[in-house]
Amino acid sequence: MFNPAITALTAPPVSVVQDWRASYAGQLGPLIDMSQAVPGYDAHADMTAALQAAAADTGTAKYGRVEGDATLRSAYATHLGEIYGASVASEETHITSGCNQAFVAASLAIAGHGDDILMTRPCYFNHESALGMLGIGIRYVDCHAENGMLPLIDDLAAAIGPRTRAIAIVSPNNPCGAIYPPDLLDALFTLCADRGIWLILDETYRDFMPLDADRPHGLLAREGWQNTLVQLYSFSKSYCMPGHRLGAVTAGEAMVAELAKIIDNIQICAPRSAQVAVAPMLDHLTEWRQANRERIAARASLFEDIMAGLAGWELLSSGAYFGYVRHPFAGEGSRDVAMRLARDAGVLTIPGTFFGDGQENFLRFAFANAGRDVIAELPDRLAAL
Amino acid sequence: MFNPAITALTAPPVSVVQDWRASYAGQLGPLIDMSQAVPGYDAHADMTAALQAAAADTGTAKYGRVEGDATLRSAYATHLGEIYGASVASEETHITSGCNQAFVAASLAIAGHGDDILMTRPCYFNHESALGMLGIGIRYVDCHAENGMLPLIDDLAAAIGPRTRAIAIVSPNNPCGAIYPPDLLDALFTLCADRGIWLILDETYRDFMPLDADRPHGLLAREGWQNTLVQLYSFSKSYCMPGHRLGAVTAGEAMVAELAKIIDNIQICAPRSAQVAVAPMLDHLTEWRQANRERIAARASLFEDIMAGLAGWELLSSGAYFGYVRHPFAGEGSRDVAMRLARDAGVLTIPGTFFGDGQENFLRFAFANAGRDVIAELPDRLAAL
Repeated sequence: MFNPAITALTAPPVSVVQDWRASYAGQLGPLIDMSQAVPGYDAHADMTAALQAAAADTGTAKYGRVEGDATLRSAYATHLGEIYGASVASEETHITSGCNQAFVAASLAIAGHGDDILMTRPCYFNHESALGMLGIGIRYVDCHAENGMLPLIDDLAAAIGPRTRAIAIVSPNNPCGAIYPPDLLDALFTLCADRGIWLILDETYRDFMPLDADRPHGLLAREGWQNTLVQLYSFSKSYCMPGHRLGAVTAGEAMVAELAKIIDNIQICAPRSAQVAVAPMLDHLTEWRQANRERIAARASLFEDIMAGLAGWELLSSGAYFGYVRHPFAGEGSRDVAMRLARDAGVLTIPGTFFGDGQENFLRFAFANAGRDVIAELPDRLAAL
Repeated sequence: MFNPAITALTAPPVSVVQDWRASYAGQLGPLIDMSQAVPGYDAHADMTAALQAAAADTGTAKYGRVEGDATLRSAYATHLGEIYGASVASEETHITSGCNQAFVAASLAIAGHGDDILMTRPCYFNHESALGMLGIGIRYVDCHAENGMLPLIDDLAAAIGPRTRAIAIVSPNNPCGAIYPPDLLDALFTLCADRGIWLILDETYRDFMPLDADRPHGLLAREGWQNTLVQLYSFSKSYCMPGHRLGAVTAGEAMVAELAKIIDNIQICAPRSAQVAVAPMLDHLTEWRQANRERIAARASLFEDIMAGLAGWELLSSGAYFGYVRHPFAGEGSRDVAMRLARDAGVLTIPGTFFGDGQENFLRFAFANAGRDVIAELPDRLAAL
């Protein structure tokens, strides 16, 4: 009846976890949702007003270009130039309907049946399931706590196989929160360029880098980056608009042409009114973005302090939106622990099992989705287990 | 560098054709765009107001359920029940970000590498390229003018191979406009059920059926349809909102569960504000939809009359949005003819070559995108060739 590559996939993890809400009776106060990677505050009023105005325009109800509206592509290219200290052409961008779609399109542009893509583990569940869905193989390189949940470059080099088409990296990382330092990304780029494979770099969380970080990396200033780098981004987190579905790819023009063929089949074009609305916000909301970076960093800091004081729990790494945590119930299985945490403590997290094999002792906490007062409740809540 | 399955695809056909606009100097008046399948009028004011109101709500800026908002799924299931005289559960629907995405998800849920799907030819170009992109094989059954550009059931039965997983049909058809009569669809369903394969039925244009048609078919009232039928739909045409990207699948719950895994990877969820806005419109705009059906039928009628009077041009079939036309320049190639038509006559059409092999003598005219006064100009325009 069905394609075995799809039946082999688990149900969407976030849906599975959200369904645990009903198991909590509210005995410890309102449910604390630290499962989904969303900002726990609303969009700026100017952003919402822009979305409203764009939706009122019947012009945005029409199809747009597959690659994205020229205005947004141009604004995004300029924005990239400012962040990375590089010159990016608008033709080197492709607007997508979210960053998951950007990953699917980038992977499919690069790899077909029998090829594989190298990922770090723990891995973002939708990257793993997207490749499984497409019949693209996966090679894994494990991250280790003693290395801050970053992979070792030698491990990555050794794992590249004859049909490996790309290394896919998420920085700031999902689920670990780990930030890849610029020199590691530079070495990764060099490795990929030397081996003639692509570096897919998902920077969904780049606007929530640590406060002391300069720029995320210098890869877009490297000669010929267009033949090695494919950079992915989401407007969902930075502009608090995941429901409007908007992402972007930065890539050479040859890759953009391949992406357009894929996006035409999957989507025709990204939603137009969101494109129109967000274009002026990249510049207009610069200070607001910075304030949110500070706000989320304060949540990260509090979360780290709290975890450091909890006996039995161990924070392996954290940053941007996430903390990756070893729970104290070894042998129980992360899914069972997360279900108990939902039911008995009213705290939703994502169990490690969704981030790949060998992750049974871990949980991902998305602290971006909770205010400091809520995060402060965690010791009492976790004590309920 | 790239996946050969993608490099083998042509650039998005609509983009290719839209780029011909610049070749026309305006010598015969404004350009007439009969290329893209869009309604040549705006959304109802209540629809636009609903989109605006939904975009103003920060709640719609958040992620929703993968399968779609419960309110829209319920409204759509009720709507289906009214159209088809059947009882469809809301759990038997899945909201997508447009109907192309619905086709990709349905195909991938059914067929993997090495499997194939049977299509009629001429075929909708995005269906062909979607399967090519996914590494799913295609078997073709040719339609013939003497049969109203409908396929013969015996041809379809004979073309089913050992790895054929589905027959994909578009009715009303793109590009031919041909309407599949209920008894042909019934026979197709029986054929698929008997052979244990799926019937993927794309009904994007069902709200533009002929005025004398009762209901499109009775398949949703057949016992166990959930094990054979996957029905696709788009809100883009009927509500004049292609830029908002919204479509739907009707399928059994087991299929919906598979679709959800795929849509989670491709999209996470369909745009929320469009979902919120369109839900009450299914009922509210019933009369307006009927008026548009009459409006488009009048365009079809005028187009048919005009084509009948043009020496050398032959209308093979027409209906809903499209007329499929044999041009008088045999041997020249449809792409060259369409380019000349754009440059010398200021009329954009889609050349037959984009609808599959053997279509060089044909052009698709999307008359839905032009008013009657504009369609009336066609004889003078075509005379310029």
